[in-house]
Amino acid sequence: MAENKIPYKIYLEENEMPKQWYNVRADMKNKPAPLLNPGTLEPMTAEELGGVFCDELVAQELDNDTPYIDIPQEIRDFYKMYRPSPLVRAYCLEEKLQTPAKIYYKFEGNNTSGSHKLNSAIAQAYYAKKQGLKGVTTETGAGQWGTALSMACSYLDLDCKVYMVKVSYEQKPFRREVMRVYGASVTPSPSMETEIGKKINAEHPGTTGSLGCAISEAVEVAVKNPGYRYVLGSVLNQVLLHQSVIGLETKAALDKYNIKPDIIIGCAGGGSNLGGLISPFMGEKLRGEADYRIIAVEPASCPSFTRGKFAYDFCDTGMVCPLAKMYTLGADFIPSANHAGGLRYHGMSPVLSQLYDDGLMEAVTAVQTDVFEAAETFARVEGILPAPESSHAIKVAIDEALKCKETGEEKTIVFGLTGTGYFDMVAYEKFHDGEMTDYIPTDEELAKYAEKLPKVEK
Amino acid sequence: MAENKIPYKIYLEENEMPKQWYNVRADMKNKPAPLLNPGTLEPMTAEELGGVFCDELVAQELDNDTPYIDIPQEIRDFYKMYRPSPLVRAYCLEEKLQTPAKIYYKFEGNNTSGSHKLNSAIAQAYYAKKQGLKGVTTETGAGQWGTALSMACSYLDLDCKVYMVKVSYEQKPFRREVMRVYGASVTPSPSMETEIGKKINAEHPGTTGSLGCAISEAVEVAVKNPGYRYVLGSVLNQVLLHQSVIGLETKAALDKYNIKPDIIIGCAGGGSNLGGLISPFMGEKLRGEADYRIIAVEPASCPSFTRGKFAYDFCDTGMVCPLAKMYTLGADFIPSANHAGGLRYHGMSPVLSQLYDDGLMEAVTAVQTDVFEAAETFARVEGILPAPESSHAIKVAIDEALKCKETGEEKTIVFGLTGTGYFDMVAYEKFHDGEMTDYIPTDEELAKYAEKLPKVEK
Repeated sequence: MAENKIPYKIYLEENEMPKQWYNVRADMKNKPAPLLNPGTLEPMTAEELGGVFCDELVAQELDNDTPYIDIPQEIRDFYKMYRPSPLVRAYCLEEKLQTPAKIYYKFEGNNTSGSHKLNSAIAQAYYAKKQGLKGVTTETGAGQWGTALSMACSYLDLDCKVYMVKVSYEQKPFRREVMRVYGASVTPSPSMETEIGKKINAEHPGTTGSLGCAISEAVEVAVKNPGYRYVLGSVLNQVLLHQSVIGLETKAALDKYNIKPDIIIGCAGGGSNLGGLISPFMGEKLRGEADYRIIAVEPASCPSFTRGKFAYDFCDTGMVCPLAKMYTLGADFIPSANHAGGLRYHGMSPVLSQLYDDGLMEAVTAVQTDVFEAAETFARVEGILPAPESSHAIKVAIDEALKCKETGEEKTIVFGLTGTGYFDMVAYEKFHDGEMTDYIPTDEELAKYAEKLPKVEK
Repeated sequence: MAENKIPYKIYLEENEMPKQWYNVRADMKNKPAPLLNPGTLEPMTAEELGGVFCDELVAQELDNDTPYIDIPQEIRDFYKMYRPSPLVRAYCLEEKLQTPAKIYYKFEGNNTSGSHKLNSAIAQAYYAKKQGLKGVTTETGAGQWGTALSMACSYLDLDCKVYMVKVSYEQKPFRREVMRVYGASVTPSPSMETEIGKKINAEHPGTTGSLGCAISEAVEVAVKNPGYRYVLGSVLNQVLLHQSVIGLETKAALDKYNIKPDIIIGCAGGGSNLGGLISPFMGEKLRGEADYRIIAVEPASCPSFTRGKFAYDFCDTGMVCPLAKMYTLGADFIPSANHAGGLRYHGMSPVLSQLYDDGLMEAVTAVQTDVFEAAETFARVEGILPAPESSHAIKVAIDEALKCKETGEEKTIVFGLTGTGYFDMVAYEKFHDGEMTDYIPTDEELAKYAEKLPKVEK
């Protein structure tokens, strides 16, 4: 390869880093539906939400109008520790695929949490600290969010209680240990420390837990302990706001070289990465300034966008959280046991759900053996060992690049590489040993969960 | 913290990246002693070395005179995938320590191999490929070098056979699995595939292996299989040459902001990182253009610089490799079982050994509980979870910064952060659980190994 005009990695200078988050809701004609009180089914007020979340975060959660919100200096300083993340031109992948497409990826894995989750963790921890709280509680599944929050809390000297889905706690002792490096307490969920945990353990003896259940536990502990609030790593509007830093940096880096993407691709679990990556591009689209194909990629085994209902549902198993209107498979849905990696939440960000329902973005699914194959192809040519989650986006980016090879089109593809797979080697091992299988839930199965959706006339 | 003039991370532009490696031997008055043929005890000729190493690498190994050697374009392109690595201003650590010292670290862990090892792995794999070879063999202990070589070989479509010290193979299945992602074959050492492996297994039934033993196996396989050569991740002159990219980038980044370091600190196992980091600074020192305090930090449990002999010794247990004149604890020395992490080689780079013997650098030791304490302090404020190896440098950088706090001196300290600790969580767990112990070998023990040093009158 000769010297290229566009470098392999585009790094912004410190003074080019975003000073404000972008709130895509401000440009949405159809706003995301409000969260509902699970008891009254009325929209949650700021006061009600304030029992669970920090005040400033409640304000951000409810703010559908302010397009730009200042990033406090302290958070910007923290961002400088691990940001800007590089926008990488995937020259080697392009060559491997022999495609005329130009592929870029925004790599969020170069920090110890291993993913983009740190972008919102530090924001949520900062506002908790600013409010004078003692600590925060949360749930974690695969462990990326828990690690990110532990890092943020350690930096700000804030207590951090993590409820980790039991199966992950047992299978991922190293993730747990990283959280301990950062001083967090990590409890396997369901535990015997909470009412909801005791109830679930009694009803389902030997259960290995779920995200929805761990959320219920974390919320219960936050509500019962003075000086604590609950924080969440995805789904919420505030999280998408914080994660907009991904998209803003991406856009700034592209603008620096006058690059206009044709297709933007992100993996979608609860929507934190995808929402953050696409926010400024979606903003242009909403304002009629530009058009982009935006593709969400979800696991075939947890297909909330493509096979879920757009309806009000509980965010957690214990039904202690507000209801959100979102694409959902039902609050009791748990991906089949052979599903590796994250992207296992039953619902989807209300913001993204509304945008998808309005036809502003597409969604596709991928089965995990295809995803791991794409991951390995990518790792071998681009060097980075990707997280299984991120590899959903790689899979579809490769598909789109191969389409360009057929048609000869020189499209520009940008995808989000959310993190690294260093703590997912058990899944890679299964893949190498030919022991990884795919599972696509049947229509009957999905219908069983959909039937149980709460009846809300909104 | 307010906006700072010097950014948190200094990244070079692609066109500022080094185009040549720097060979510190060219500026050394006392050259490193030549490698000796273990049979004749005469200096190894290029022809003899050519049976084990690629021709171009033999030339680099023997070249004591050329100060700058061009980095081939293909290697520069590969470097662009994960380099330049950032030179980070440790603002948060400085604040935590309340020191007037200015601390910088060159972070080499932002690539999937997790360390600086990739810098030499790609060079060695490239020259093997260029020579038309089928593959390379090597040994790995903790697994960073094996991972790096696997990545480089996968990129160049070269076969890669890794002999992994058995205890690591069993205790670090994830490292092994990362190598498999990159298509390497990984064999626990001692194996029953080689003559030396069979011999060692017969003499020491149940042995968990050592680096020296794995080297012997890898060399045997390379020599017996046409189209294969052996490659090594540390100790050799060629490796220091390739690793000079670390120091060259560091110096270029410092020069950009007119920063003159007072102290340069690196961890030392076989010397690959330390040698690479200090090369251009040592060059200035050798040429009388500048002066720096240069400090090597080694584990108290494997103290080759501080308590070894400067003498000819075997590089491997099987005594099939050439002899090198170096600071050594004896080829049979193995660190005590409680030693975590790498830096466990019995010898030290002949280049660094000569420089140390000439009084051009210092060496100190650290016990591992102190090292892990420093690692955790660092992780909590700087975000990065460091490798145990790298944390030796952190420990001494903190010590020096605290001395500045006492004296009020505003010294500039630069240290090498060679890698991340994501695959070392078992050791972190022991540290957290209070189960980590220190071991300092007694003089009697060391004397036992030193007695067995070969008698070479050179």
